[in-house]
Amino acid sequence: MSKPKGFEKPAGVRDYLPFAVEKLRAIERSVLDCMTSWGYRQIMTPTMEYYDTVGVASSTSDQKLFKLLNNRGTTMVLRSDMPAPIARVVSSLLRDEPLPLRLSYHANVFRAIEEEAGKEAEFFQTGVELVGDDSAEADAEVVALAVSSLQAAGVTTFKIALGHVGFLNGLLEDAIPDREEARETLKEVLMHRDYVGYRETLASLSLTEEQRNELEGVLKLRGGKEVCHQALELSGNSLAQSSIEHLAQVWDALEDYGVAQHVMIDLTMIGDFSYYTGMTFEGYAAELGFPVCSGGRYDNLLQQFGRPAPATGFSLKTNRILDGVGGIQTERELPILLQYDATNRKLAFAEAARLRSEGRSVLMKHTDKPEDLLSETETVAQNVRSGPLGPAYGEIRSFVSF
Amino acid sequence: MSKPKGFEKPAGVRDYLPFAVEKLRAIERSVLDCMTSWGYRQIMTPTMEYYDTVGVASSTSDQKLFKLLNNRGTTMVLRSDMPAPIARVVSSLLRDEPLPLRLSYHANVFRAIEEEAGKEAEFFQTGVELVGDDSAEADAEVVALAVSSLQAAGVTTFKIALGHVGFLNGLLEDAIPDREEARETLKEVLMHRDYVGYRETLASLSLTEEQRNELEGVLKLRGGKEVCHQALELSGNSLAQSSIEHLAQVWDALEDYGVAQHVMIDLTMIGDFSYYTGMTFEGYAAELGFPVCSGGRYDNLLQQFGRPAPATGFSLKTNRILDGVGGIQTERELPILLQYDATNRKLAFAEAARLRSEGRSVLMKHTDKPEDLLSETETVAQNVRSGPLGPAYGEIRSFVSF
Repeated sequence: MSKPKGFEKPAGVRDYLPFAVEKLRAIERSVLDCMTSWGYRQIMTPTMEYYDTVGVASSTSDQKLFKLLNNRGTTMVLRSDMPAPIARVVSSLLRDEPLPLRLSYHANVFRAIEEEAGKEAEFFQTGVELVGDDSAEADAEVVALAVSSLQAAGVTTFKIALGHVGFLNGLLEDAIPDREEARETLKEVLMHRDYVGYRETLASLSLTEEQRNELEGVLKLRGGKEVCHQALELSGNSLAQSSIEHLAQVWDALEDYGVAQHVMIDLTMIGDFSYYTGMTFEGYAAELGFPVCSGGRYDNLLQQFGRPAPATGFSLKTNRILDGVGGIQTERELPILLQYDATNRKLAFAEAARLRSEGRSVLMKHTDKPEDLLSETETVAQNVRSGPLGPAYGEIRSFVSF
Repeated sequence: MSKPKGFEKPAGVRDYLPFAVEKLRAIERSVLDCMTSWGYRQIMTPTMEYYDTVGVASSTSDQKLFKLLNNRGTTMVLRSDMPAPIARVVSSLLRDEPLPLRLSYHANVFRAIEEEAGKEAEFFQTGVELVGDDSAEADAEVVALAVSSLQAAGVTTFKIALGHVGFLNGLLEDAIPDREEARETLKEVLMHRDYVGYRETLASLSLTEEQRNELEGVLKLRGGKEVCHQALELSGNSLAQSSIEHLAQVWDALEDYGVAQHVMIDLTMIGDFSYYTGMTFEGYAAELGFPVCSGGRYDNLLQQFGRPAPATGFSLKTNRILDGVGGIQTERELPILLQYDATNRKLAFAEAARLRSEGRSVLMKHTDKPEDLLSETETVAQNVRSGPLGPAYGEIRSFVSF
């Protein structure tokens, strides 16, 4: 390709100008404070990890990992999500810490993309991990915390869809036990929320009426707790049944948390089956067509780092909240512009220091020419910058002797 | 090399456990708030940039840039410092904004290192840029802000060494005009603060007594404003003279800021001559043998991005402050552990929500077995974790009916 021009940046990455940074920082801080109030403590890990450890263990598909070679020829990745690095830390620096561990993070993560695709190659995630507790109470805690975190991020109207990988696995295994390929195809179309494709796939398979009814019945399993009863009737498979019993326990706890009105059960929801091992969930904001958070249980991750332990957690898709939702209102108090001449400089600096100590923002402007002096009555309206930074100051004070 | 073990992370990068994160975040926030109070507004740029633009323009030497190829074969870098990315933004998204622009940042930056060297490959910088003002007042502002920022970061005892690339350039050009190689060698040894090597190099050159006195005189040019008078006497070169006059103006402004007691003039201090174009400075904390901040004027950077403009700024070496200096004391209020049984769960969740809304941190623990119940009088001492996370909670409250 041609040499990039000076002002160009790579595809898929972005600059955040001050208004966006103020909003992003407000979301970051409010959400992390919320997580702290639930007893989660923040950790940070490096941007680069070994491909063979964290890269392979991550939930990101291999072709989406951003790979690079270090100067010894070892393949590295830019981190694609946080559960795998955190599993590494829990298994090394924190190996002697008793479980359960509650950890939180706010981190930029990376995806290798086709440059033309327009998807983001670097974005932020804010999330938690609850390590060492396999109970339904633990799953309910992270879902309830996801509700609180979304509210802390300024997302007011949203719904969390709750599913379980075990139900569909059990039901499919039981309904069409000898047809692994068909099972994979059905999961694939469901993962893309392609219900028409699901029905078409069912029609193309030569199934008994009983089988077709059972498999079509999956599509109806979306709603409140009544879905659990419907699901128990639909499949007698023991894995499917125990999965639903677990979900019902999670639901009951969410009712006690007082957040069930934000949650629905959706047994058609499929996450990454190779990664999640139990409950999964996704949060949808009313304004947006894509999830603003996702999470679930992944009990097989930590054993890959030598410390087998169950784990459940979620991450907010912080950029989507920043871009797509009203979010937190950030109020910026406009700075005071202090203009001064040489003879009054010391006085002006002292006044600036005093104002700053009171929490005000103060800009300095030196001028020794009367014609450069800004009128103190110059209004903010006259000073409005139409550009992306808005007005530079909201008030002028002068320390001049001419 | 052999395949990395599961718990290994790459050389030169680090994990930050909760106590370190709390401290790092406190420094980050305090310093950024300080910068905001001086009218600087925060921006964020991508981790990856094009090598041919930002990489080449950065002040980091080429072999220290962390390079990688994107999927189109274009060479990218992980950002090595922030002035070059900010220059790109000022020349693109902010090209129509009037100058001066005051911008701040907190960012992780990357260096390619030899794995054995033990140096950090990823670390944090917190800094500012003042773009579009070539005055001594602008230089003084960033030095005074560096003083305030170090104090905001919890660094109490420090000294800022102030120099100017023009003085030594002018003096050397005048003293040994035909000996470029000797000039480069002398700069090289000074850059490593090798004063013995500087004297030895001088001795090895066949110089007149006048030349040797002039060049040896440089080593004495460290102290307060009197150094400016000594320097003016040492070299009559016009660049050297105008550089000293500029420094004297900066010093006078720093006196008016009331921060001159934190500053010394050090004309033996050499930054990167290919990058800095005027005043340079470095901050040294009493406790540490290496700089905790560095900065200066670089008037040639922005023109490389198509918007010629003078610029001055600095960055704190945030990791060194985190690791080496007492820094900001962070007080962590220990969480309350709420234990509950099934019948009291809703009550316990409501109490947790109430406590969290009051700013407390609350951990939940479900137990239906009397033998698992923790005694409310169990002290924190009994609960001390000797590990890196410290105690998990400071108080126990129970909602149980058995």
